[in-house]
Amino acid sequence: MMNEEKFTQHLAGLFSKRSDVFTGIGDDAAALDLGLPDGKLLLAAADQVVEDIHFLPATPAADAAKKLLNRNVSDIAAMGGIPTHALVTLALNPLDPAWMEDFHASLEQTAKSWGLSVIGGDFAALPRPGKQASLSIFGLVEKDRICLRENAKPGDRLYLTGSFGRSFPTGHHLHFHPRVDEARFLAGTYTHAMMDVSDGLAKDLSRFAATSGLTVRITEPDAIPRRDHASLEESLNDGEDYELLIAVPEERAADLEKNWPFPDTPLTHAGYFESGAQGALFVQEQRFHEKGYDHFHENQDH
Amino acid sequence: MMNEEKFTQHLAGLFSKRSDVFTGIGDDAAALDLGLPDGKLLLAAADQVVEDIHFLPATPAADAAKKLLNRNVSDIAAMGGIPTHALVTLALNPLDPAWMEDFHASLEQTAKSWGLSVIGGDFAALPRPGKQASLSIFGLVEKDRICLRENAKPGDRLYLTGSFGRSFPTGHHLHFHPRVDEARFLAGTYTHAMMDVSDGLAKDLSRFAATSGLTVRITEPDAIPRRDHASLEESLNDGEDYELLIAVPEERAADLEKNWPFPDTPLTHAGYFESGAQGALFVQEQRFHEKGYDHFHENQDH
Repeated sequence: MMNEEKFTQHLAGLFSKRSDVFTGIGDDAAALDLGLPDGKLLLAAADQVVEDIHFLPATPAADAAKKLLNRNVSDIAAMGGIPTHALVTLALNPLDPAWMEDFHASLEQTAKSWGLSVIGGDFAALPRPGKQASLSIFGLVEKDRICLRENAKPGDRLYLTGSFGRSFPTGHHLHFHPRVDEARFLAGTYTHAMMDVSDGLAKDLSRFAATSGLTVRITEPDAIPRRDHASLEESLNDGEDYELLIAVPEERAADLEKNWPFPDTPLTHAGYFESGAQGALFVQEQRFHEKGYDHFHENQDH
Repeated sequence: MMNEEKFTQHLAGLFSKRSDVFTGIGDDAAALDLGLPDGKLLLAAADQVVEDIHFLPATPAADAAKKLLNRNVSDIAAMGGIPTHALVTLALNPLDPAWMEDFHASLEQTAKSWGLSVIGGDFAALPRPGKQASLSIFGLVEKDRICLRENAKPGDRLYLTGSFGRSFPTGHHLHFHPRVDEARFLAGTYTHAMMDVSDGLAKDLSRFAATSGLTVRITEPDAIPRRDHASLEESLNDGEDYELLIAVPEERAADLEKNWPFPDTPLTHAGYFESGAQGALFVQEQRFHEKGYDHFHENQDH
């Protein structure tokens, strides 16, 4: 059976691209060149949360809504963009007005904090108990600042924001703060290649490298900040970190470290992109076979 | 308990609007004024399909995908626009690759028939058996051709495209053809006020009138084409017709009827918009209390 990676690539290959599609399926967001003023591109991405998968029945509706919006905001950030608008669909059983009220109020509160507007949506009944919500987000980015997974170059340094591991037990997966400000500082100035970490550091690093046709090597595993005393294994595999992976040309690295203006956001030089087997991840000299989240093999109870 | 109408209005009231939101929540799609060339607006809408609600377990994946996309295309048509791009999320259990393959292949086939590109999405596992899919659609419309529910005027004629009633038993709800060509012919030339019928002719007519602050009167109920020998009651209440409701100024009506270039699409003059109780629907002299689809009171088995 195909794994998720191959299946997603296969699906992406099904879809044809209009001439205004600057970046299609396969990055954190799509980018459309619609002739916007100042050479801006419209970014668009969609993601979802499912009860018992991405949040628990006991999770407050407000936290589920915040997570749903913020994981989409993180995708826009990883492209170097600013989030602008969102559409949301909600499917649930029972149709609990108090839950829906809390969900939408939190969605608006979070949206407002990013200066984005929720402009439409839908709600529907599910036939059996459960909750599912999808959100599409739009954003804007200057064409000369867009950051793509395919833009890492051999010799680029790998930087990471923030900490990794144990996102579920610590509640980080609900309460993270997407790296929009950090990404805007980086985009076009220090990098044209970023990605956000949702499915696990190892898995997403491997995807990033693969899209650039490169190998990636973590040379400083012990430098990676770990959340809540996570093991290295947990920091590499757990996922839902919503941090940035950044490819920085060697000649920009010293400047970046000197000028980093976010004292509360760790910026870690963890390794390098290299020529080599496409998508291979090494931790020092060891080839690392990632065990990140694969939708086709997951334990459906977690 | 609030009904769906009031609850939706309440939710819409929660959300703040950026200055680039030309039309927000409450029409068939939102419209954004992003400074596009030729004064075009970007349209955006989201809708979903749920197994056992909008399609049956026996429904082919290809038909579910076509319905999902086409009901969104119908929303863009009702604004007078052309569909351009879509994002899709799929949540299902089991994660059946054959079903997903058929779903996405049909999505692409339908998208291609409209000249639109699927530019992103996500899939996730549901914790219990079932299927749910959400789609966000974008479109483009000239600012001077956009058609809004709020633009009907007292004295405007009410026209309808197509036939009504018995959408489920006839399979129309899966195999309808959204009225994009018809809408583009009408938009800006014969009307600035349209809406599509998804929740039932009576219910949606009442919404249309309400948004324009008017009453609507069906003066010619027997002129409304009915699908599959539907009763008048069925044609007014069943829903999922995906036809256009059109408000046409009296002085444009003769021209419209003379020039209608779609011999296969019935165009029916069914009544008038009038000053009067906001959102009231009359069938001839009788006030009609609609029984369309209300998500808060539905039978969850249909």
